[in-house]
Amino acid sequence: MRILILGGDGYLGWPTALRFSARGHEVVIMDNFSRRLWHHEQSTDSLTPISSMADRIEAWEEHSGRRIASYVGNIEDGDLIDRVIAETLPECVVHFGEQPSAPFSMISRRHAVMTQRTNVIGTLNLLFSIRDHVPACHLVKLGTMGEYGTPDIDIEEGFIEIEHRGRRDVLPFPKLPGSLYHLSKVHDSHNIHFACRVWGLRATDLNQGVVYGIETDETALDARLITRFDYDELFGTALNRFCVQAVIGHPLTVYGRGGQTRGFLNIRDTLQCVELAVEHPAKLGEFRVFNQFTEQFTISELAELVRRAGAELGHEVAVRAFPNPRIEAEEHYYNAANTKLHDLGLRPHLLGEELVQSMLRIIARHSDRVIGRAIVPRTRWRPGELDDGAAGVTPPGDEEPITARRADDPGTLTEPGP
Amino acid sequence: MRILILGGDGYLGWPTALRFSARGHEVVIMDNFSRRLWHHEQSTDSLTPISSMADRIEAWEEHSGRRIASYVGNIEDGDLIDRVIAETLPECVVHFGEQPSAPFSMISRRHAVMTQRTNVIGTLNLLFSIRDHVPACHLVKLGTMGEYGTPDIDIEEGFIEIEHRGRRDVLPFPKLPGSLYHLSKVHDSHNIHFACRVWGLRATDLNQGVVYGIETDETALDARLITRFDYDELFGTALNRFCVQAVIGHPLTVYGRGGQTRGFLNIRDTLQCVELAVEHPAKLGEFRVFNQFTEQFTISELAELVRRAGAELGHEVAVRAFPNPRIEAEEHYYNAANTKLHDLGLRPHLLGEELVQSMLRIIARHSDRVIGRAIVPRTRWRPGELDDGAAGVTPPGDEEPITARRADDPGTLTEPGP
Repeated sequence: MRILILGGDGYLGWPTALRFSARGHEVVIMDNFSRRLWHHEQSTDSLTPISSMADRIEAWEEHSGRRIASYVGNIEDGDLIDRVIAETLPECVVHFGEQPSAPFSMISRRHAVMTQRTNVIGTLNLLFSIRDHVPACHLVKLGTMGEYGTPDIDIEEGFIEIEHRGRRDVLPFPKLPGSLYHLSKVHDSHNIHFACRVWGLRATDLNQGVVYGIETDETALDARLITRFDYDELFGTALNRFCVQAVIGHPLTVYGRGGQTRGFLNIRDTLQCVELAVEHPAKLGEFRVFNQFTEQFTISELAELVRRAGAELGHEVAVRAFPNPRIEAEEHYYNAANTKLHDLGLRPHLLGEELVQSMLRIIARHSDRVIGRAIVPRTRWRPGELDDGAAGVTPPGDEEPITARRADDPGTLTEPGP
Repeated sequence: MRILILGGDGYLGWPTALRFSARGHEVVIMDNFSRRLWHHEQSTDSLTPISSMADRIEAWEEHSGRRIASYVGNIEDGDLIDRVIAETLPECVVHFGEQPSAPFSMISRRHAVMTQRTNVIGTLNLLFSIRDHVPACHLVKLGTMGEYGTPDIDIEEGFIEIEHRGRRDVLPFPKLPGSLYHLSKVHDSHNIHFACRVWGLRATDLNQGVVYGIETDETALDARLITRFDYDELFGTALNRFCVQAVIGHPLTVYGRGGQTRGFLNIRDTLQCVELAVEHPAKLGEFRVFNQFTEQFTISELAELVRRAGAELGHEVAVRAFPNPRIEAEEHYYNAANTKLHDLGLRPHLLGEELVQSMLRIIARHSDRVIGRAIVPRTRWRPGELDDGAAGVTPPGDEEPITARRADDPGTLTEPGP
């Protein structure tokens, strides 16, 4: 199958490209390297030393004998994505090509606008190009479980049957997203649903939980094939961050009471889920939503798991409650359906101490690359709470106090340079 | 009260500005004249000859002794709207400043992107400026009943209580918008709701039905105060279009079977509703949704009303079923709540033959200004159906056949120049 992977340089995009190439598919990737750029802007970096795109592609060709084609550019450029779709005529587009961070979207107006513009307009451009050149192409789009928020009822997969005043209908599940980034994904979902309803396109929206893990079968083959691993406050996600913190002796940054419950999954299961979606495409005109996670945990449960697993490897792990920079319920009902991918054959890699220990060992190999200033949360959902919040944080270890401001946002602080 | 009206040059924005000024409020308007520009692009125009902004403001000062301040510019320019908010420190922002046409958003990729970018980013910029400069300001935002689509259950005002698997929650009403324009309004609603939940802003989202009518008390005072009146396929709305068609002897352009049911209201009631919302503001942190319409009609009922009213004035009115350019149900359940504005004191001006006849008389005064080529629908929701659709239309009167294409969209036709 001809598969175009947008965001093919990313944490998930690159391993996905390798997986499909390994399976014999004809893989094309497109990326504008914005994640690498945003790390430059923040003076942060991936924990793992990732190769250039050309080196990655060459290394994969050495190992597999297969060539991955690549385009450099932004899908916010409608003429460019239109040309790429017209040239490659993909049978499937796997779309990871978005700004993926909630805190990044909350730094300032500029970051919020960039996030919503890049994500919503990029995806809208893509929908037009699919409509005009490859209307039978299956769009597999990365969404997020964070679109739903934490309603006080069970979360279904995209749609819910509502009985109201004696009538019934199956309607899109109401959304209460928790950041301007999560909102961009909600907007995408509505636009894609429309393209399926009105233009007859076919799409699968993968409402993914929080991903953890470093390695996949293919990235482990060669150091040049390793994927990025973010642990900073902007792009790192809960368990990945905790594992880095455990290795470097930083207290685990639990936000508030830590009762926040979310769905989680192993990066290996992300690849499995995307494969299942691609191999079992939506029908023409169908907008299909899968909740893509394998287990639910509270943040406190994750912290405790990392503490236990770290202790067995000799890491002394402290857990500290940080003032929550986000506006979110810290104790809430949470029960989300995730049966559709299981029905297609998903065999989950469940989370346990052994898995955490294997992550800790890999992280330890790269621990000299950890940038300490990237650990503590700085970006607050309510800038008015900045001073209280900052004052409430006990600066962990021997970090510098918070004194300098980001140039583009008078309401958000960052640290002075080293 | 200091009131900033965005889109203050428009069909509703200008009469709203006059009304609040007449009531003694301090009114500031902002507009970038994009509607006037889009008409130039289409070689169409308002039926009513509208004055320049400077002439309008002078005429109003002559009549009222009150000065309306104005800014020229686009709220998509975040620095500009930030400066305007910081300078004017409004207690209320009435936000009409968006691209308001469903067919316009469906012409081409460029029009779709422009619509979603202008509307969503403009409103997002506005939310940041309110947060940073006037967090207690009440945002009154024009939404549309078209955000809901036509679900098979009763439509509530913004939120619905859902009972699901033994639990209950009150959640945002699910949306099934019918065009990329309507989607932009859904995106806005989600973003504004977030700003209220997370930043504690206060907002009223007016999900407005289809507005009809030409005059308000203030615009009738002087020819220079008249508001715009659109009847073309892009910016004209159902009843207004039918009235112009009746006067010029064009068959009423009913789309398909005409069973589409929508909520409607008189322009005088738009002003009344906006006033009620402003006078009874939302609470801090509250995102309040009002369904702003006074009566429900099917399109066929409206056509029949115009036919009857026209006949009494000597207009011979034909009703013709045109191939529906939109993708929408032509027969469906529709029952929308609209009690909240009534509870605040709304006294509706209901639609009847007399009102239609007064519209027909005003239109007749300007009938020499009607541009015939703007009447027939050209913009199709599915460009693949273009040739069928165009062939299915009997060119009414002595119009030119459809032969030329819009420069920016190979899939959408327009007529050659005169």
